[in-house]
Formats: sequence, C-alpha cells, structure tokens
Amino acid sequence: MTGRKYVFAFGNGKAEGSAEMRNILGGKGANLAEMSNLGLPVPHGFTISAEVCDFYYKNNRQYPEGLREEIRENLKKLEENMQARLGDPENPLLVSVRSGAAASMPGMMDTVLNLGLTPDSLQGLVRKTNNERFVWDAYRRFISMFGNVVMGIEREKFEALLDALKKRVKANGDTGLATKHLQELVEKYKALYEKETGGDFPTDPETQLDMAINAVFQSWNNPRAIKYRQLYNITGLLGTAVNVQSMVFGNMGDHSATGVCFTRDPSTGKNLLYGEFLINAQGEDVVAGIRTPEPIEDLKGLMPHIYEGLLKYKDILEKRYRDMQDIEFTIQENKLYMLQCRNGKRTAEAALKIAVDLVREGLIDKNAALARIDPHQLDQLMHPVFDPMAKKEVIATGLPASPGAATGKVVFSAEEAEHLAAKKEKVILVRKETSPEDIAGMYAAQGILTTRGGMTSHAAVVARGMGKPCIVGACAIDVDYKTQRFSVNGKVVKRGDYMSLDGSLGEVILGRVSTVEPSLSGDFATIMEWADEVRRLKVRANADTPEDARKAREFGAQGIGLCRTEHMFFGENRIDYVRQMILVAADAKNLKAKLLSLQDELEKAPGDRQSAIRKEITKTKAELKHPQSLYTKALNALLPMQRGDFEKILTVMDGLPVTIRLLDPPLHEFLPQDAASQTLISKKMKVSLKDIQRTVARLHEFNPMLGHRGCRLGITYKEIYDMQVRAIIEAACNIKKKGLEVYPEIMIPLVGTEKELKIFRENILQLAGEIMKKKGVEIHYTIGTMIELPRAAVTADRIARQSDFFSFGTNDLTQMTFGFSRDDIGNFLSEYIERGILPKDPFQSLDMEGVGMLIEIGVKKGRSTKPALKIGICGEHGGDPSSIAFCHRIGLDYVSCSPFRVPIARLAAAQANIKKTETASTV
Amino acid sequence: MTGRKYVFAFGNGKAEGSAEMRNILGGKGANLAEMSNLGLPVPHGFTISAEVCDFYYKNNRQYPEGLREEIRENLKKLEENMQARLGDPENPLLVSVRSGAAASMPGMMDTVLNLGLTPDSLQGLVRKTNNERFVWDAYRRFISMFGNVVMGIEREKFEALLDALKKRVKANGDTGLATKHLQELVEKYKALYEKETGGDFPTDPETQLDMAINAVFQSWNNPRAIKYRQLYNITGLLGTAVNVQSMVFGNMGDHSATGVCFTRDPSTGKNLLYGEFLINAQGEDVVAGIRTPEPIEDLKGLMPHIYEGLLKYKDILEKRYRDMQDIEFTIQENKLYMLQCRNGKRTAEAALKIAVDLVREGLIDKNAALARIDPHQLDQLMHPVFDPMAKKEVIATGLPASPGAATGKVVFSAEEAEHLAAKKEKVILVRKETSPEDIAGMYAAQGILTTRGGMTSHAAVVARGMGKPCIVGACAIDVDYKTQRFSVNGKVVKRGDYMSLDGSLGEVILGRVSTVEPSLSGDFATIMEWADEVRRLKVRANADTPEDARKAREFGAQGIGLCRTEHMFFGENRIDYVRQMILVAADAKNLKAKLLSLQDELEKAPGDRQSAIRKEITKTKAELKHPQSLYTKALNALLPMQRGDFEKILTVMDGLPVTIRLLDPPLHEFLPQDAASQTLISKKMKVSLKDIQRTVARLHEFNPMLGHRGCRLGITYKEIYDMQVRAIIEAACNIKKKGLEVYPEIMIPLVGTEKELKIFRENILQLAGEIMKKKGVEIHYTIGTMIELPRAAVTADRIARQSDFFSFGTNDLTQMTFGFSRDDIGNFLSEYIERGILPKDPFQSLDMEGVGMLIEIGVKKGRSTKPALKIGICGEHGGDPSSIAFCHRIGLDYVSCSPFRVPIARLAAAQANIKKTETASTV
Repeated sequence: MTGRKYVFAFGNGKAEGSAEMRNILGGKGANLAEMSNLGLPVPHGFTISAEVCDFYYKNNRQYPEGLREEIRENLKKLEENMQARLGDPENPLLVSVRSGAAASMPGMMDTVLNLGLTPDSLQGLVRKTNNERFVWDAYRRFISMFGNVVMGIEREKFEALLDALKKRVKANGDTGLATKHLQELVEKYKALYEKETGGDFPTDPETQLDMAINAVFQSWNNPRAIKYRQLYNITGLLGTAVNVQSMVFGNMGDHSATGVCFTRDPSTGKNLLYGEFLINAQGEDVVAGIRTPEPIEDLKGLMPHIYEGLLKYKDILEKRYRDMQDIEFTIQENKLYMLQCRNGKRTAEAALKIAVDLVREGLIDKNAALARIDPHQLDQLMHPVFDPMAKKEVIATGLPASPGAATGKVVFSAEEAEHLAAKKEKVILVRKETSPEDIAGMYAAQGILTTRGGMTSHAAVVARGMGKPCIVGACAIDVDYKTQRFSVNGKVVKRGDYMSLDGSLGEVILGRVSTVEPSLSGDFATIMEWADEVRRLKVRANADTPEDARKAREFGAQGIGLCRTEHMFFGENRIDYVRQMILVAADAKNLKAKLLSLQDELEKAPGDRQSAIRKEITKTKAELKHPQSLYTKALNALLPMQRGDFEKILTVMDGLPVTIRLLDPPLHEFLPQDAASQTLISKKMKVSLKDIQRTVARLHEFNPMLGHRGCRLGITYKEIYDMQVRAIIEAACNIKKKGLEVYPEIMIPLVGTEKELKIFRENILQLAGEIMKKKGVEIHYTIGTMIELPRAAVTADRIARQSDFFSFGTNDLTQMTFGFSRDDIGNFLSEYIERGILPKDPFQSLDMEGVGMLIEIGVKKGRSTKPALKIGICGEHGGDPSSIAFCHRIGLDYVSCSPFRVPIARLAAAQANIKKTETASTV
Repeated sequence: MTGRKYVFAFGNGKAEGSAEMRNILGGKGANLAEMSNLGLPVPHGFTISAEVCDFYYKNNRQYPEGLREEIRENLKKLEENMQARLGDPENPLLVSVRSGAAASMPGMMDTVLNLGLTPDSLQGLVRKTNNERFVWDAYRRFISMFGNVVMGIEREKFEALLDALKKRVKANGDTGLATKHLQELVEKYKALYEKETGGDFPTDPETQLDMAINAVFQSWNNPRAIKYRQLYNITGLLGTAVNVQSMVFGNMGDHSATGVCFTRDPSTGKNLLYGEFLINAQGEDVVAGIRTPEPIEDLKGLMPHIYEGLLKYKDILEKRYRDMQDIEFTIQENKLYMLQCRNGKRTAEAALKIAVDLVREGLIDKNAALARIDPHQLDQLMHPVFDPMAKKEVIATGLPASPGAATGKVVFSAEEAEHLAAKKEKVILVRKETSPEDIAGMYAAQGILTTRGGMTSHAAVVARGMGKPCIVGACAIDVDYKTQRFSVNGKVVKRGDYMSLDGSLGEVILGRVSTVEPSLSGDFATIMEWADEVRRLKVRANADTPEDARKAREFGAQGIGLCRTEHMFFGENRIDYVRQMILVAADAKNLKAKLLSLQDELEKAPGDRQSAIRKEITKTKAELKHPQSLYTKALNALLPMQRGDFEKILTVMDGLPVTIRLLDPPLHEFLPQDAASQTLISKKMKVSLKDIQRTVARLHEFNPMLGHRGCRLGITYKEIYDMQVRAIIEAACNIKKKGLEVYPEIMIPLVGTEKELKIFRENILQLAGEIMKKKGVEIHYTIGTMIELPRAAVTADRIARQSDFFSFGTNDLTQMTFGFSRDDIGNFLSEYIERGILPKDPFQSLDMEGVGMLIEIGVKKGRSTKPALKIGICGEHGGDPSSIAFCHRIGLDYVSCSPFRVPIARLAAAQANIKKTETASTV
C-alpha cells in the first residue's frame, strides 16, 4: 500500500481533490476541495482520506506506512501558505480537526477546534486578536474538548468545575466570567486532565494534532455512530475522512463576522440569498443564541463587497452543484472565507419550487427534478400544520402515526366524539386503543391519541386512511375512563379541556394551538404532471366511503384498489342489523348442521331408532324457522344500505375501476366485548344478555388473525357474501343505467386454496347473471382475490385459474410470513430494529428478502397461468416509496394506498422508473 | 364407440374378464370373473363395464349404442346356461343387480335383489322352493327395494305400512307375519307404488332389469356416494360397473345354507378357515341376527364335501391373490356357489402375522409384506384395548384424539389427578379444555376427556405424545366444576364415579370396562426389522422426559428430534420459580430500557436538564436492583433442575442425538389467567395481586401464536436462553465424563431471519466454549433451527449459513402458511373438508401443495448453501404415513414423531422407499 496518496490539500484556488471524490474525502472534504477548485476563498487545509480509516480498522488499528510523513509535508505546506506556524509564539496557526464521511452523520463523530493553542502560542494570538478574554475562553474550551474527545474524560466533570466557578463568582451565565476567571478555570481544567489521564496536557502542537486525528478515526466506531448507521441503514462506507483546516476568526472586530446562508429560501424555495450573520462573533455564538443574528440582507449595507461576493459564489455553487446550497462562511478582517457548502435541507414546498425552477433555469432536466424530491416529504403538504410562530407546551410524545396538526376538546369515547362533532365542536379522541367500533367517532374527531399500539395498530392504520392526525403508543399517559381524565408527568387533563396533537412529530400538546391549512401550489401540480409522464405503475387509492373516494380522485388516484365493506357496517343504523345478523347466523348455522346430521343419521339408523330421529328432525326444523327469518330480515335490511354506498362510490369513480373487498374481519369484531355494552345491546335488540354472551363466547378466538375470517366467512355464511355481491352488482347496474361508466372488481379476501375461489367465482357469475338479466343491463365486472397468505403465493398458478386479478395484501402477508401479529410486535420490534435484526418495521416498509420473495413467486406463478393477469398491491406498503420501487421492479400493474399518500406514490412510481435498478434509497 | 365390448359374461368355469380388469369390471365383477377362470363354482352372470357409466355421464345420460342388444344377448346366454328364464312361470330365473366400482364404497350405491319376480314367476318359485312364505316375503322385499332404489320412494313409507300391519296383527317382529299377511302387504306396497309413481309396478321382468341397471348407474352420483369419494379421496375411477347375476338360494331346505368365511383368522392371522354359516337361510338372515350362525368347522361334519371344497378354494384363491380372502358362499341343494371374494379386513395383529407367514410360505416377498400393512393400524398394537366381550354403555362420543382404552375415577382437576394417582388410584381427567398447567395431572391420569377442542388441541397433542387415551370435543357433555359433576343427555356423572374412554373410537363410557394390555408379537419385531432394512429415512421421537425417551428407544427411535424444554417448567417446584422469573423479568427489562434511554438523553441534554436526568438515573439503578436480583435468583434455581433433566435424557439416549429446543411458548402461558389462581399465587409468592395482574395484562397478546414467543424471547430475555444453554452443555459435559456418548443438538425455535440465529449462534459458541474449558471436557454439539415460518423457508439459504441442521416445525408452518390457528379452525374446518375445499385436516396430514411447496423451497435453498445440511421434520406430521412418504421423496434425513408413532413411522418410511413415486395412498 506504500506509494498510495492519503492526504489531499485544498485552498488557494486549487485542490488535489474534487466533489467527485466524496467516497474517500467525505462530504465535507470533497466540497472544501471543490470550492477551492471553483476559486472560492477556502481556508487552507488538507483532508486525510477515509481509506486510512478503512486501513486502520482492517489492520488492527495500525496506520498505513508513510502516512505520518505525508501529514507532516502537508502541514508544512499549510504553514507556508498561511504564513503562520502551529505553536508559533509570534504568529501561531490554529487548526480544526473534523470528521466527515461520505454520508451525513450529524453530531455522531468527533471534532476538535482551536488546536495549536499552547501557553506560548496563546500569547501570539492575544496579540493578533487583541482580545485576551476570547483567547483564554478558546483555550479553556480547547482543553475540555480535547480532554473529552481525545482522552475520554466525561464532559460533565469539566462542566461541574465551570458551574462551581460561576456559582462562586456569582456569574450570570458564561459571559459573566472575566479573563481572570477563565485563567483560573484553565488551571483547574489542566489539573483535572492530569488527574484523569495521569499526564500533563500536551503543549506540543504536533502531538495535539496526532492525538486529535487518531481520536477522529476512533470515533467512527463509537457506539453512537454504529447505532446511527444501523438506524439509517448506512452501509458500504470506507470510514470517515479527517479534515485539518486552518482556523479563521469572525470575532476579530467589527470587520469580522460569521454566518450561514442558503442559496434559496429553504421554506418557500424563492430564489434569493437567505440566511443570517453576526458581526464580531464565532459560529458557536450563533448557536448559543446570546445575541440575535441579523438577516443576511443587512450585510448588503454593512459590507457590500462581501455581500456581492456571496451572491457571486451562490451562482457559481448552484451552477456547479445544480442544487440549492447551504453555506457556512466567516469574515475575518474584511475577508470572506467559505467554510462549508452542501445541498441544503428544505421544506416540501421549497423542494417542489426549487426543483421546478431549476428545470426552468435549465440547470437540471425533469427526471433529475423528480429524482430529487423525497416522496415522504410530500406528506407535509397534505395536512394542516401548526403555526410555526405559536408557542407549544409539549406534555408527552408518542409514535407519529399519521401526520398533520389538530386541536380540539378532549373526549374519551367515540360516541361523545360523534355527539359533539354533530354540534360543530372540534374534538380530540383519546383512547387506550381503538377498535372497529370507534370508526365513526374517529371520523368525527380532529385527531386521535392512543396510549397503546404501534405504527400499524388499528388507530394508526385507520387514521392514516382518513388523513387524520394521530399519535399512538403515548405510553406515559395514564387514561382513566371512569373519571374521564388522563394524567401524564403530574399534569391532569380532563374531558372538555383543550389539547393539540402534532401527528408529524408525535407531540401531545396542552391547550389550543392555531393551525394553518395546507394549500397545494402550482409547483406541486407541475411535479405531479411530470411524474405521471414518467411512471409506468398505476396508482390507486384505498377508500371505503364516497368522501374518501372523492379525495382520492382529487389527489390523482386512477381507481380504488381497496374498498373495505366492513367499515360500512359500523355506520349509523347499520351496526344493529349487523349484530342481529351475527347473533342469529350462528344459531341458524348450528341448527342447519344439526338438521343435516340428523337426516344423515336417519338414513343409516335401524328401524327402532327412526321414529325418535324423525321427531328430533321436526323439532329442529321448527326451531330453525325463527333465527332463519331474523337472519334473512337483517340481511334484507342491510342490502339497500350497502347498495346505496356502492352507488355513491361508483358515481364518484365514474370511468375508473373500483375494487370492492367482501367482508373480511371475524364476526366477533362487531359485537361488544364488555358487559356494559352487551347489556345495552341486549335491551336495544330485545335479546337476552345470556344469549349475547353465549354468542360472544362461541365466537371467541385465541388467534383471531388466524381464525374464522376473510372468505372463510363467505364459505360458512354464504348469505352474507351473497348480499354483498348483490349490492355491488345491483348498484353497478343502477349507475350504469344513469349513463355512467362502472368497473366494479369483486375481491375475495384471505383465499388459501383454488377451490375456495372457484366456489365464489361460480356463485358470483350466476348471481350477477341473474341480476343483470333482471335489470336488463350488462356491466363489465371482474372477480379476483387478495394474495395475503403464503399458501396463496406459492399456489398462485392454481389460484390464477379462478382469478381475473391479484391484489397482494401485504399487511396480512407480512404477518403470516414473519409470524408477527401487528398488534403484538410492540414487545420486541423496537429491540429488533435497534439491534439491527430487522432494518425497518416490516409493516411500514416491505421486507423484500422474505415477503418480497413470496410476492415474486406469486407474480411469477400467477402469470405463468395468465400472462396478462392484472396484479396490484393494497397493503400499507402501497404508499411507501421503497416498497413502490420494488413493486415497479417486479412488474406489478398498480399500487393502492390511502388517498393522502397517492401523490407520494405517484412521485415514487416515477422515481422507480427513472432509477430502475435501485431498490431502497438510504436516508 | 360402436363395436366396443361393454358386457362380460362369467360362470361355468370361464369368464370374459379377469382380476386384472378391475378398472372396468369393478372389484366385485373382476373377482367373479377371476373365480370363474379359476374353475370355482360361480353363479352365472355378466358384468356391464364401468366404461358405460363413464359414457353415460359424459353424454348427457345416454347409453352407448348397441348396449341394450349386448345386454339382451348376455341375458339370453345366461338363461340358456341356467336353464331358466326371467319371468318364466314354470322355471323362473331370478337375478341380482349390484353395483361394484374399482374401489370399495360399502353401502354407498344401490342393489336390487330377487329381480324377475312377477305374479306369474312367483308361482314357479313357490313350486321350486316349496316355501310360499319365503317367496311372498321375497316379493314384498323386492317391491319395496325396487320402489326405493329405482323409483326413489322413501323407504320409510314402506316401513310405515309394515309397522302398521305388525301392530294390527300383534306380530312379534317380521317373523310373526304369516303368508297371508305378506300377501296383504304386497297389495299395500303395490298401491303405495302406484300412488307415488303414478304407474303400476312393472310386471315385465326385462323392464324391471332395464330400470334396475339404470338405477345402479344413477346411484354412482348420488350425494352419499359423491361425499364418500371426497371423504376417502377416491378419484380417477370411470364409474361403477353393474353385475347381473343369477340368484341362488340357501334357504331351499336342509341341504342349503349360506355363509361367510375368511381364509385365515382375521383377528389372529392364524392359517385356518374362519367363518360361520346358517343352514336353510339367506344372507340377510345372518345379518338380521335372528338365528345364531354356526362356526364353519361344524360344516365339516354336516357337509364334508362342501367343507373340502371350501378348503380347496381357499388354497386356490390365496395362491392367486397372494393374500387372505374374505369369501361369501351359498349352498343350494348340496351345491356350493361362490358369490364373492375380496382381500379380507383384519386386525393389526393378524395383518402382521399374515404378512410374515405369506413371506415364509413363499407367496410374497418382504417388500410386498411391508407394502401391504397399513401403518395407521399399528396404533392398535401400542395401546390397551377394551375386552371385546365386555358390555359398554356409551353415553357420549367425541373426537378420537389419542387411541387406547382407559378406565378410572372421574376427577375434574389436574391437582386431584396427581393427588389420587399418588395413592395408586386410577383416574380419568375430565376438563372443558386443558392448558400447559395441567401436564402433570394429564400424566397422572389413565385418560383425558375434554368437551372442547379439536384433534390438534392442547389435550390431543399432549395426550398423543404421552400415548394416553384421549377424547376431545365431546361437546354434548356439560361440565360443572363448581358442583364437580358433568351431565350428558340426562345422565349425571359425579367426581369419584367410574367411567371409561375408548380413545380409538371416541366413546365415553359409563362405569368400569376391563382392558387388555397390548403385547408386541414376534411378527411385529420381524416386520420392524424388515422395515429397518429397507428404509432410508431415519426415525426419531419427540420426547420431553426421560420416561418418554426410554419409551422412544424401546420403540426403535434413532434419537430425539424434539425435546421441548417448556414442559419441564411445569414440573413440581419449578413452576413457582418460572413464575417468579417472569414476574420480575418484565420489570427488569423495562427498567433497563429506561436506564438506557436516560443515559442516551443525558448525552444530548442541555446543561440545565442534566442534573435532573442524573437523579433519575440513580433512582432507576436503585429500582433495578430488586427485580434483577430476584430474576437472577429464579434463573439460578432453575439451572440445576434443567441440567438434571438433560442429564437424565442424555443418559437414556446414550449414543444417539438429542435435539433440545429452547423455550418457545409466550411467557403468559406460564401465568394463571383467572383471579382465583392469581390470588393463590400472590399469597404463595408474596407478590401483590395487583402486580401479578399488571404483568398478566402487560403480557396479554391479541394473537399469541404470532406474538412474543420462540427465539424472540431469547432476544429480549437473553438470560433465560443462556440458562438453558448452560444447562444443556453442563449436562452433556457431566454425562460424557461418565463415559457415555452425548450428541446434544441445540435448536432455536421460530427463527425468521439469519441475524437472529447469528446472534444465538455466536452466543452459544462462546458460552459452550467457556463451560467446556471449565469442565475440562470437549463435547460434540451442534446448533440449528426450526424452519416454521414461511420467511425462514424462503430465506433458508441465508439461515443455513448459521445452522448445522434444520428441523421443519410443520405445525406452525401449517398455521402460518394457511393463516389457520389450530385452536380456532373448529369453526370452519369440518365444512371445508365436507365440501372438499381441503382434502384432509392439514394439521394431521401435510398439505403438500402449499406447505409442502415451502418445505421443498426450504430444503433446496438450505442445501444450496450447505449441501450436507441435516434436515428433519418434527411436527405432528412426522408420524403421518403420507407425510412421511413426502419427507422421503424430498430427501429429508429424518422424521420425528411421538414415541408411540415411531413404529408407524418406521414402517411408513420403508413403504416410502419401496414405492417412491406414490405420494398418498387412497383408503
């Protein structure tokens, strides 16, 4: 490895590196080199390659041969260029030693500033800066920073000495300390250093430098940094580079200053220099917030040539990087130094405007503009946000389950939420957890807060579907339904009190906070238009109501990929019929089974037993009449309601396909589980409490997720599916008669075998044929299935024989493939992610290795039977960009997601087609 | 199709068909032809080919051209041979018309006897038989049989007329009716026939024949027959053949008789003629049980030449069929007629003896002997049976979950079962359902009865493992724990009453029934020896205790494929420590997590918040001490107990591998869920009831099967797995030091990702290394995993990197692949099987299409990484013959099943190697 170049100088209008060498110079080093190449004034320095870091860890923490000499040479050149020398008592050079990897890892690794200060050089600096206090302050900071970073002394120990001194001299903050106090502190710090390390604080600046460089390389593998890389899935890096750069000072008088600016407004995207600066200050003063920085425009009057310079550099950098830049600069005695540049972070609004503007300015093409916008960020634009100026008292945090801001009065039950919302009151629904019964109340509320559950709990999934702000798993909050209040960290919030939720941040806020409604700009429309031009994957929405369908269409959905019929069952007036239906269906089913077995028995029975069996048959037939008639009555009552729902949805979706899934959840979800509600229903429905409880007990399941649900209900309770099919086909006929175009797609859930689907298919074909004949109208409808069981995926070639389309239900497929219950993974998922066992929550981002493998098998087998089989995905993953990229890659026809995620999906689908080979982008 | 031969004559020492033509002649027809060919005296007749049935259903219920003529020709030949004519008033020929498919479907299709009787021919028969009453009785039977079978008149209507007549004339049974009564009945039957069909009863015998033949072909697709074929998986048949055969009469005086016999004793297998006969009787008289038949030996004295004939035919038939035959015969006026022969049904004991004897007699080879024994039947030999002579009052039936017979006193709790068993009392444990807490009580009981659950419920699985008779799901029984009694159909059984269970039949029996202990014959050993010579697949046992291990070895297990450690947790003294461990583990875990997050927070916190955080850290550390020490204490108490268990098991299994699975079930399974038991524990363990209930609530899961279990416990509660690994390795070291050979295989359950297994592997390697070093002994151990999640199967190539072996946990794999919970499928499984959606319960017989596909993928991928990877299966399916054949075919190394199924598996593994290409044999 000898002879290899490890150190790259920069500054003075040229550099040995460039922006393209990010891999080995790190982001910071590459940009410092590039700015030098572009002729921008960058303080001289050099970057030690990340290959050294790689070598170091691969060779038992040894450095490559010759590295030390290379550093010495570069230091010498640096000293020559700066006409100053490290440690020189007359003209001292100070340097910073900073980490910098190819991917940003803010604050994870170590930095040492003001390196080169010694008792001797300190005097020189005092003379140069004419500011004794500043120099001593810099010295004591250097000692503690070095002691902490390089020698591992706990920072708290330095802080404790500082606190004690401030207390003794009654100083009001750090600025209350005079030079003599700082000098005293330096002595104390040095003593601490000696005590902790058993040696003197190094006074040889080259030793300081060697130790600091070593410390930065070491910091690459500190636990925080390792964890950060795991968390953000940062892999494949060589290590960190080390940047050694001469210090410049913005606090050398009124012709010095320090500042940060963006080349465009990061909130709005407007094309103007945006930032702030402080005269006679160092970077850390801006951060400390002791003095208020001035807006960058003020620099125009104060130092016009500097402002001109910044404007010039803005243009040069934007032309070079073809993107908005975030710049740090320092002015030392009227001379501008550029300390850093990088692509600037921005709001979603700004991201859209900048992308569109850059295309118009000819700097990038449309594809580049599309590729550059983080689809996740679009979420910000879809939901109200809190007024950024408003004060907020955050009393707890939870998981940010559904973005947006909401304010309202606290209620603790779905009923009350509905009740107050009907009176135009704004409410926040607070529950330990939600269940399907709470849907109407959730719809009525401004936002939802639960104290249990994860990102894919019932509350989270439903709220995202509705586009409602929602926070879940705020486990510090203790809800007491009895007293109608909740407490958290000693604070008590009662029913009717105002509170606010920030669903994007997961913040639970006391009191009212004003919100700002989002408005979608023309740039948004432009980007969406470009995305639509590029993408191949269609985007549909999951929508259960006409309102959702309307919203989905607004956001550009090309159809409904999942319309869940069960949510309709919870509507006003309906739930009673649904419950009636369930209470008698089980009775009717049992009696029918009994009848069949009696008839069977009769055939085989010897003569002397036959009359007894015949009597039992007569009795059973009589018993069956009652539940059978109630069952039919309930179904007949539900039919027109369901038909009406479908008519409305099909009307909204005129001309677009609507996939309607037949009943999926287990029947017990529709019955109340607590005695109080059971009593209520018992009275309301005139059924004995005992009977209700018997049915609830009979329907109880140990593992409802693996139980009697999905199409298994359609097999055993055929009449319910028949009613739903009838409602769909009748609705479609009625709407078509009005001259609209309808494309209903009937979807059977939880199919595991071809035979199941065959039974449904034959039955639907017959039923639909009868209805269309009666109505005198032909509609185009299809019959398909969800692929959400591993068995369905591996036998997809058979299932495809009965199916016009597949829709991968990735929520359930993920549950079955991993053997994870979404409702129960809270106990171990966070540990799994922290320890890197899983890269992400597989319910949010598709597990391509396992679940994805089954999807690929399913697609391949399905298309082996029917090459043109239409295939989509309708789980939560349909709105996740990296999952969308996967769907694109394996050749799906569409993704379906909640209406609010449709724009995200449109953009992600376009990006997938632009960079086909990438799978998941790193954060 | 014209020109094809559809009708095949037989009789008179020759036939147009043969035994090889079973496909088109059906079993009955082929054997009648074969017996004719062999020169045996078979009443003349002809068989109409099953191809006609096939044609009939494929051609809209039309018969092939020319068939009628072919039948007429054969009828003519028949009449010539018999020197009698259908319908002839002087010398009438009567025929039977019988169905007969290639596979036996007893009683499913229709038969018409005595066809040819008319008012005219009746007179001729009276003359011939000299028995007027018999002829009129035959006539009235013929009318009702014809009316029912051919015209679909309900049998009950004929029976009602008979009953009314008997009542009127005060007849005691059918024999109480005189000829005149029968004549009256004939008139009544004819009137009924006219009323129901609107036509006269046919007096033309050829019309009768056409109609009867047509009815038999129709009966092929009657609902019962369709269901039967579904149930027994009978596919690929052309249809039924129809046998038209001249009737012979055993009731023509003292030189006539009818009888059935076996060519060897079907209970013992002894080589002698075994059967019975009735002088002057017809076949139905034997069935009706009015007269007691005589043993076949008595025929020797009565009709020596007939007996000689039977002996001769026995030899001829056995030589031809190379198996024991079941024969029906009739003697008409001193002449022997053979009416039927087929392979005889036999007990397991007989099956073994006959197979071994036939090999010794040189009639078959060893492979044929092995292939011929139904492995399922061996179950009979492993368990006690009721004395066949004993009287039994069956009061209810349930699912036959685990075979064998048991008698004892009723108890309703596991504790009492243990208590009484300790006093040498025999008890039957009756529960609504069982849970892991009941294990010790189940072990102590003679048999187990539950009123809920299915064939794979907890009770069923555990009982099969123990080889205890068990009946589950006896839902007619109403158990009342409070009063310690159960009631069923008006009968009440109290605690302490005697009762009996027939686990093979699912019969719940009142009172004591004497049982006969099984003894394994030399033939059994011989067959097992032959099986071991032939099979490639190894057979291991699932065994959790030294007793089970011993039994497994006795039955020939070549190792333990699954030793579940959790069952050990329920043992005496242990469960308290386990509960202690669980109650504090969650506390300790939460506090540790809190501590980590506080330390994290401290790093990032601004100066003014740090001291508050530091205080909290100190507090948390103090709080943590208590549960941490209790946790360690409980684990330390459990360690020697687990080590002791493993020492015993490893000792028993000296020289053979033992696969030990680390803790699998969710922790809440170990805590009591009802308030009463919680209170008990609270007192016993000195933990507040509230704390216990809090932990129970915290551990509650919505879908425990998909929850915090398996290796997920090992990730979050590392200490528990560490304790178990330590126990295994220490035990192995200790036993090896005693000079025994130990091969422990540590198995990690529910692995879904490579990373999980990697963590355990590294940890086990380190821990084991330390222990072996300390003990100064090297043992050979391996680390592997269960493949029981679909994700594990599809990523098996990665998982194999960390694994020395795979064991497919097909119970869970079936659950996840289908999305079926074993505990909940009762609601729909029976309907799924009845309707043919599933061929069998997939938890009993492996679903090869879906689950099997995943297993194949897993095997292929696993071996792509490690070609020599050892792979087995340890679910319930490991003891199911058709599943074993599948395991053989896809190249597994071993199957593992409950000890009592080991012989079954040995035989099934041999059969699989004999007939490699077959998958599942039809019944």
